[in-house]
Amino acid sequence: MGRIICAGLGPGDPDLISVRADRAIRAAGHVAYFRKAGRAGQARRIVEGMLRADVVELAMEYPVTTELPFDSPEYIRQLCAFYDGWTDRLAELGQTEDIVVLCEGDPFFYGSFMHLYTRLQGRAEVEVIPGIPGMAGCWNVTGQPITWGDDVLSVLMGTLPEDEITRHARQADALVIMKTGRNLPKVRRALDRAGKLGAAWLVERGTMPGQRIVPLASVDGADCPYFAIVVVHGQGRRPEMPE
Amino acid sequence: MGRIICAGLGPGDPDLISVRADRAIRAAGHVAYFRKAGRAGQARRIVEGMLRADVVELAMEYPVTTELPFDSPEYIRQLCAFYDGWTDRLAELGQTEDIVVLCEGDPFFYGSFMHLYTRLQGRAEVEVIPGIPGMAGCWNVTGQPITWGDDVLSVLMGTLPEDEITRHARQADALVIMKTGRNLPKVRRALDRAGKLGAAWLVERGTMPGQRIVPLASVDGADCPYFAIVVVHGQGRRPEMPE
Repeated sequence: MGRIICAGLGPGDPDLISVRADRAIRAAGHVAYFRKAGRAGQARRIVEGMLRADVVELAMEYPVTTELPFDSPEYIRQLCAFYDGWTDRLAELGQTEDIVVLCEGDPFFYGSFMHLYTRLQGRAEVEVIPGIPGMAGCWNVTGQPITWGDDVLSVLMGTLPEDEITRHARQADALVIMKTGRNLPKVRRALDRAGKLGAAWLVERGTMPGQRIVPLASVDGADCPYFAIVVVHGQGRRPEMPE
Repeated sequence: MGRIICAGLGPGDPDLISVRADRAIRAAGHVAYFRKAGRAGQARRIVEGMLRADVVELAMEYPVTTELPFDSPEYIRQLCAFYDGWTDRLAELGQTEDIVVLCEGDPFFYGSFMHLYTRLQGRAEVEVIPGIPGMAGCWNVTGQPITWGDDVLSVLMGTLPEDEITRHARQADALVIMKTGRNLPKVRRALDRAGKLGAAWLVERGTMPGQRIVPLASVDGADCPYFAIVVVHGQGRRPEMPE
């Protein structure tokens, strides 16, 4: 009996994959990964050059990404059918084969694999190998610690309403804002209202080729890729001698 | 000219170290790590069996841990002298040798290496290799995703005042509380006031030998190790068909 092994890929640099996930990926006879239809897919790109020559690839192509509102009945119907269908297919194939599912970052941290994970319970043996979350790769490349002492870190999605982002941004010491993309102008306004725009960095493609790290205040909000994360570093307690 | 390379070790299982950090650790001629005086040290324990036979080990022993209040002048004086002293020693040795500093979790996420990192700026070439944060190892072993959809995750220290923990716990969807230890009874009370005690898990030594995962409500607060993390999973948006 086979297993479904979800391998967390980390922030993007293949050298930052864990030893366990690296081993599973290189040994895999079957790999599966999510991607937008017509695209290479970020997860697949990360493992380029690591796969067996005879690997069988299963590209799980989202039927819809941003074309429909995520709370519309049609979006929900299409995504459920998509996850249900791939659950059936992986569960069946998993009866005889190990399948390694490639997931960027850490699979349990806002990862799409969770939708298969919950559906696969009781139908297949599933193992999840954690990964370095994308945000950790992003704060690493800024060259500054994200949190000190008893700093509070809050992780927010750019999809939240502006008032909610503002409220959370006011109360936390350190911030990570993911899913920026088309939400970037809203995120900028929210951080400005919270008095934190000047301390915010935009990290695009952190740890990957084409990486860019810029002050958020300097960015034109109209053009922002999905893989960008906003980071505000905490400045908390640390042992320093008085001046 | 040598370099100071800080290798993030991840949550504790050596198989969860990144490929890059694993390579650096196995090749190291000099390794340094923090520990409490008289203890083996968690970082050193993780790499047991991985080091070169001829490695030179530098144990950086804290002059004080919990014996003094962390905001007392004497605590600050002793810790500053400790970090200053090791900065000098690493900077000098780093002129001729590579030194790999071992750090649990992710070095920029509440890590002690940050105190050396800031002091070493301009005095040595420093590279920081990110790691899987300890909290990600802990939520992984609970077997449940930590965040869904647009859940807000807040990371809090158990050292914060009870009212602050309560306030943040009320406003976030998912929670991680670190530095529990002797703060556990306070953390329990705060989560109870926030209506989240029933959903909280205590994870001790996550991904390591002797790992324990128990509902926080069932734990006697009097006895809790430092390496325990409290986790409350988010239950956010996910595409599900109406009943």
